[in-house]
Amino acid sequence: MDKAQQDALKKAAGIEAAKLVENGMIAGLGTGSTVRFLVDELGRRVQEEGLQFTGVTTSRRTQEQAEGYGIKIVDVDDVDHIDVTIDGADEVDKNFNGIKGGGAALLWEKIVAINSNKIVWIVDESKVVDTIGKFPLPVEVIPFGAGHVVKKFEAKGYKPVLRLDADGKEVRTDENNFIVDLHLERIDHPQDLAEDLINTVGVVEHGLFLNMVDTVIVGDPNGPRVMTNGNK
Amino acid sequence: MDKAQQDALKKAAGIEAAKLVENGMIAGLGTGSTVRFLVDELGRRVQEEGLQFTGVTTSRRTQEQAEGYGIKIVDVDDVDHIDVTIDGADEVDKNFNGIKGGGAALLWEKIVAINSNKIVWIVDESKVVDTIGKFPLPVEVIPFGAGHVVKKFEAKGYKPVLRLDADGKEVRTDENNFIVDLHLERIDHPQDLAEDLINTVGVVEHGLFLNMVDTVIVGDPNGPRVMTNGNK
Repeated sequence: MDKAQQDALKKAAGIEAAKLVENGMIAGLGTGSTVRFLVDELGRRVQEEGLQFTGVTTSRRTQEQAEGYGIKIVDVDDVDHIDVTIDGADEVDKNFNGIKGGGAALLWEKIVAINSNKIVWIVDESKVVDTIGKFPLPVEVIPFGAGHVVKKFEAKGYKPVLRLDADGKEVRTDENNFIVDLHLERIDHPQDLAEDLINTVGVVEHGLFLNMVDTVIVGDPNGPRVMTNGNK
Repeated sequence: MDKAQQDALKKAAGIEAAKLVENGMIAGLGTGSTVRFLVDELGRRVQEEGLQFTGVTTSRRTQEQAEGYGIKIVDVDDVDHIDVTIDGADEVDKNFNGIKGGGAALLWEKIVAINSNKIVWIVDESKVVDTIGKFPLPVEVIPFGAGHVVKKFEAKGYKPVLRLDADGKEVRTDENNFIVDLHLERIDHPQDLAEDLINTVGVVEHGLFLNMVDTVIVGDPNGPRVMTNGNK
């Protein structure tokens, strides 16, 4: 599948998911290439159809894009709940365990997600996997002492790589932290790994989103396909 | 006990602990009013006795004080280990469980502590308690979504108070996060509480330091008293 085809699937998933946002709702808006299509479609509906809703964003990038369409964006602490959050994912398996954070926004994404009544992910079919872990697992780490955290991960065989930008500088999240990507290839026991990571001093959050999502909309060449999580 | 008496005990404990720092060592230096006396004494030994050691600091305040004495300070990631870290504590019980973070430096303090071969706390006797929790437990929280974290703590009966400065603005840590103080009065199950806190999305770290310390030096009117942790 080339990039144009993949983009077409992402766009179809984004347009399908946009239907979940109704007048008067508070909607969480994720981050990433698939979410861009979602926000484009929501912007179109706001401008052409008079849709009115309030958005809570998970990154500065999404906020700028949404505000460019005149979508009203408020801080997560200015709302007492979020009706639905629509976000992308880097991988998701059939148990609705996923990896997020390829775009370095996992922390705000997780904070918005846990305050949402319903969580929807939009992905192209390449993101649906048997076992998560082929996609490097992002971990958000406090810069102070980050080198020691990397060494501990190495000793555990987690194959950590500090994420650098094109200039060779550490990537900084919206909270000014580092991202360490774990090249695990496969994660057979995601709950155990999540527990180990969150109990590592210096780790702020990790990209394992385990059984959090309610609905996954998969951009499929035969039309968007919906996976519903019955065990949440 | 008035403040002058308490300061005298803190100073005695600080001077006693300074003896643990020897030529060529890498020493972690904590934060707080008792540590100020420690750093004063180390500075005196550097200047008067030619003591040579390298320091790793847990706050910008301590770094400035130490560098004022000509003590060489390096980043925690520039050393492969720390020989001994000397820090204060807000409370410590007979099981060597403690609360730290009154000075808002708990995150860097914990990062330095876990990378130290030996951890020493210096306290005045008022900090040694039967049950921790009378001192409000500081929790470092990501500003994004902090209001929701506070509401969750309220629902659990944790009696959270967002720490404000004299101008009514949120106190910011060295990592630019908020501090929420939990007014629990007594913490009967510190391990359970620690687990709940660290698994709360938005929490970076908390001030429970459970069975981490090796030695507690207590400033006592009869002279410094040493408590040694045999179960670590």
